[in-house]
Amino acid sequence: MEKNQRKKIPHMTITRLAQYLNCLTLLPREHYREISSKELAEKIGLKPTVIRQDFHHFGGFGHAGYRYRVPNLIEGLERILGLDQKQKIIIVGVGHLGQALANYRNFDRLGLELVGLFDINPRLIGITIRDIRVRDIDEIPAAVESENATIGVITTPAEAAQSTANLLIRAGIKGIWNLSPMNISGPPEVIIRNEFLSVGMMELSYRLKTAAVG
Amino acid sequence: MEKNQRKKIPHMTITRLAQYLNCLTLLPREHYREISSKELAEKIGLKPTVIRQDFHHFGGFGHAGYRYRVPNLIEGLERILGLDQKQKIIIVGVGHLGQALANYRNFDRLGLELVGLFDINPRLIGITIRDIRVRDIDEIPAAVESENATIGVITTPAEAAQSTANLLIRAGIKGIWNLSPMNISGPPEVIIRNEFLSVGMMELSYRLKTAAVG
Repeated sequence: MEKNQRKKIPHMTITRLAQYLNCLTLLPREHYREISSKELAEKIGLKPTVIRQDFHHFGGFGHAGYRYRVPNLIEGLERILGLDQKQKIIIVGVGHLGQALANYRNFDRLGLELVGLFDINPRLIGITIRDIRVRDIDEIPAAVESENATIGVITTPAEAAQSTANLLIRAGIKGIWNLSPMNISGPPEVIIRNEFLSVGMMELSYRLKTAAVG
Repeated sequence: MEKNQRKKIPHMTITRLAQYLNCLTLLPREHYREISSKELAEKIGLKPTVIRQDFHHFGGFGHAGYRYRVPNLIEGLERILGLDQKQKIIIVGVGHLGQALANYRNFDRLGLELVGLFDINPRLIGITIRDIRVRDIDEIPAAVESENATIGVITTPAEAAQSTANLLIRAGIKGIWNLSPMNISGPPEVIIRNEFLSVGMMELSYRLKTAAVG
């Protein structure tokens, strides 16, 4: 396993491994103690061979033709994706999207622990969401250090995204998940993922148009 | 232009075109009447040659070495992505994520018109968000027909995602943007995009892990 992880894994494989894990964590445990690549493939809309090829990068999780034990599969996928070491996350920007993410139960299942919520709006500072009190962004540096937070989520308006990123980077955050509409950048040692929600919608629009043209 | 669109355009090109459009619509218009591929590349974190190659699929938007006129570029990208024909969208599930999307100003800029909000929760039915009254999901079929809505956005809990999709498909929706954590499926003539927010977070976690090992 360790040796394999040094190899460059295709980006699409990582995306699919995350989809498999997402799907598996949502299965009712009592019905799925084991699952075949065919069953998992049907749930996700992929070919079973794709799943087996993806698993092959990491030692295969068992032998061809056998069913996978779901707990083993979840544990293995979590280890590959780095979710076995609990990551502590903070969210900056507690508007609708920030609150949606703060309440996203799926993150708990993935070992992501929310340890801080921050905003600049005095009307939001002091309110409590899931037992976490919203604090002023001035408190980010102290909070990142004391809580040992590694991931910062940006759900601010576009105008504030880069300055928020700069603040997070100065505070020692290792990875940034940017959900504001504005692209952000930082030094190479900080892992930045710009997630543009509207891009997904535009791709859907494109596919609708090309389907109509036929 | 029309002829080129019949060719198969790589998926990543479409994703990047959507990113270019997203970036261009957020530029302050007074400062950016024109832009070079180098300037646009810097803003997005890509190489200028990638941008020029992507534009080449669609006739290039001008000649090498010249600056692009921003309004022309926006118009061209909107046409390619099918955003020149105003798409009417409805959102099903008016929790935090549904409300975040209902308030996402960027959709307006992209020619996406929100025409309906639906939920099953009696406490949400009747409230008004951006002048749109939240209605019961029973009213979806009549609303889709009378408003001529083409895209349905699913922001329900995972358990309700597939039944909501079935309802939207029976109502005549052409495309579904599913933001619930659960994968949904439908007949081939309906374009479905499953957008898993947690997958982005898992990819970030993977990159953090490999960066720490590397």
